[in-house]
Amino acid sequence: MTLIVAKFGGTSVANVERIKAVADIVIATRKRGHQIVVVLSAMAGETDRLIELAGQAATTPDSRELDVLLSTGEQVTIALLSMALQERDYPAVSYTGGQVQILTDNVHNKARIIDIESARVKKALTEHKIVVIAGFQGIDESGNITTLGRGGTDTTAVAMAVALNAHECRIYTDVDGVYTADPRIVPAARRMDRLAYEEMLELASLGAKVLQIRSVEFANKYKVPLRVLSSFEEGRGTLITDEDEEMERALIAGIAHNRDEAKLTLRGVPDRPGIAGAILGPIAEAGIEVDMIVQNTGVDHTTDFTFTVHRNDFAKATVLLGKTAQELGAAEVLSDDRIVKISVVGVGMRSHAGIASKMFSALAAEGINIQMISTSEIKISVVVDEKYLELGVRTLHSAFGLENGSAIMNDAVG
Amino acid sequence: MTLIVAKFGGTSVANVERIKAVADIVIATRKRGHQIVVVLSAMAGETDRLIELAGQAATTPDSRELDVLLSTGEQVTIALLSMALQERDYPAVSYTGGQVQILTDNVHNKARIIDIESARVKKALTEHKIVVIAGFQGIDESGNITTLGRGGTDTTAVAMAVALNAHECRIYTDVDGVYTADPRIVPAARRMDRLAYEEMLELASLGAKVLQIRSVEFANKYKVPLRVLSSFEEGRGTLITDEDEEMERALIAGIAHNRDEAKLTLRGVPDRPGIAGAILGPIAEAGIEVDMIVQNTGVDHTTDFTFTVHRNDFAKATVLLGKTAQELGAAEVLSDDRIVKISVVGVGMRSHAGIASKMFSALAAEGINIQMISTSEIKISVVVDEKYLELGVRTLHSAFGLENGSAIMNDAVG
Repeated sequence: MTLIVAKFGGTSVANVERIKAVADIVIATRKRGHQIVVVLSAMAGETDRLIELAGQAATTPDSRELDVLLSTGEQVTIALLSMALQERDYPAVSYTGGQVQILTDNVHNKARIIDIESARVKKALTEHKIVVIAGFQGIDESGNITTLGRGGTDTTAVAMAVALNAHECRIYTDVDGVYTADPRIVPAARRMDRLAYEEMLELASLGAKVLQIRSVEFANKYKVPLRVLSSFEEGRGTLITDEDEEMERALIAGIAHNRDEAKLTLRGVPDRPGIAGAILGPIAEAGIEVDMIVQNTGVDHTTDFTFTVHRNDFAKATVLLGKTAQELGAAEVLSDDRIVKISVVGVGMRSHAGIASKMFSALAAEGINIQMISTSEIKISVVVDEKYLELGVRTLHSAFGLENGSAIMNDAVG
Repeated sequence: MTLIVAKFGGTSVANVERIKAVADIVIATRKRGHQIVVVLSAMAGETDRLIELAGQAATTPDSRELDVLLSTGEQVTIALLSMALQERDYPAVSYTGGQVQILTDNVHNKARIIDIESARVKKALTEHKIVVIAGFQGIDESGNITTLGRGGTDTTAVAMAVALNAHECRIYTDVDGVYTADPRIVPAARRMDRLAYEEMLELASLGAKVLQIRSVEFANKYKVPLRVLSSFEEGRGTLITDEDEEMERALIAGIAHNRDEAKLTLRGVPDRPGIAGAILGPIAEAGIEVDMIVQNTGVDHTTDFTFTVHRNDFAKATVLLGKTAQELGAAEVLSDDRIVKISVVGVGMRSHAGIASKMFSALAAEGINIQMISTSEIKISVVVDEKYLELGVRTLHSAFGLENGSAIMNDAVG
């Protein structure tokens, strides 16, 4: 008998009717002969309601007490699902994070799981019970309630799957899988049957609303197969596993985009060792994260230095860079928040040349000018004017043949 | 530094504004130099909301899971009060029943406290923290969440006061104390400054909405002074302590009434040993509780046997008694649910004669016919037609001089 860990998020448990629908899925899984551990979020909107209450009680609510408050959200759903299962004669038992003993560090509101004491859950499973666990929460070593931060329920599910050596961790959500591109931009986007952990990490922008990145990292580290599927309709979803050498794989898994970034350029800075640190030091000290960084050698021993930050940090970064420019004697600061980052992602590109040139040619053929380029082993990202977002994504989706799933190795190598 | 345990019920924490008002009271108590442990209920209405959700999830919700669900109610309020206190720079820390380690038996929904591990709370007090504890809940020895049943928060407060050897247990509510009679019936009713545990127990009908009887029994057993007072207005409330021999006490503490009972009479049953058991046996087996019992010797070796039950059990008891009447060859069954029980209560009557005759004379002077009489050491109860409720209570309140507080020993002895 194989063990499945199944996680249901807020919209899947939005009300008692939805919780009963979750009971249907759990029972169906059980009927197919699986043991099952269910991990639940709070009802959609409940966490916001509790945060609203906290905001009324204090302008800056104490972080320990905020965790005491927020952890009630999942406690409600686990009790309701267990009742619904028992009502249908399926033995079920609920456990809070503290009852399981999901041990975390003591960083309230964004704790990290240190260890899981799985004895209690294992015992319940041997007694043929369906175990229903509160996601998002744990306790520190002093017994204080902690929460893992928003989306932490995914992390709980993956961590439970690791602790119990589960066959698969299923993340039920309101979409039926991960797509080759955002279907709102590319109507022809296709649900992927399968992709590699690393691809999922790079495709964060496609999966962010579906899967917490931290949980994917965790699943990758411990090699737990993750499956994303819908709690609203039947289907096989998208399986996220280790890269499979044997498998005939698509060269490109999908096209991601990100419109949350803004670009800053320092033109004409003296090209000497240590210049990058001098430019980015003040940015880092201000707690601003930098994504892409590009430096070109310019003329006359000067260089142009460009990087991107989140749009929320754009104004702050622009001010900081202005000061740095004066100090370094740079020619000028250019800033632009009307950009978008488009990426092609696929583990297949590791062993195949020609992806970059195919990408650039396809964009050029549509008259899309590339402002920045950045590459990793399994990803090529370009920054373009934001007006090209839809055109760029669709062009690449089509160029790599993603709409018909034919982008397997031999076809795709241009 | 003396330790105060203060309990606030549902209406006192009905919303965040009220919770902030509770913070005011807690801080004022602290400023008067007390250590303070606060025990809270769920927000008014919250328990009902959760029960409603449970009813949607299952027609007969599992009792263990119901406790997991209901215990979230207090967890929300303890977090919010702790935040509100910290916001005002008073160090506070909240604990759930499980975190304190309020150990109960495993009778879900109506568990009883077995033991309290007070080390954690004591440590927090030595660190000068205000400790905020979730009432109504605990854990069994397997770590399952339990609840004590409605009103259990009072019991938690008293039990915490016992465990911590507190100076006083204050029960904050929406009335400013216990009255000599129901003020809705007797406008001249007076708040008592002080009364004995036993009196409070007998005055249950006056105090039922104010104090859980179980918590008074508990306070009596461990001799914890209880004070009932209002969270909405300042005042000294009513102090409930052990009977004080030294004190010049009122002969009668108050007048209680109860209109929830109904009366059944079996007329003309053979007067032989064992007849009472034969009559009440089937009633007890049906789980019906009997309150007053009166048996008179009748004529011709027969007797009339009368008892009262809760009105909810009246129809069922009437049917059962009809069968018993046939078996015993009784003359007839008389039943009446239009009755009311009126009681005068006071530890003073223990050592003073004449209370009963004064009571009966006062009622007779108003033409009120007494249907049944029952006495205990500190209480005399009569059953009268329910139309005499207001007149009877007012007559006795006046006869014993309760409105001006002059019913002290020497005055009152007729």
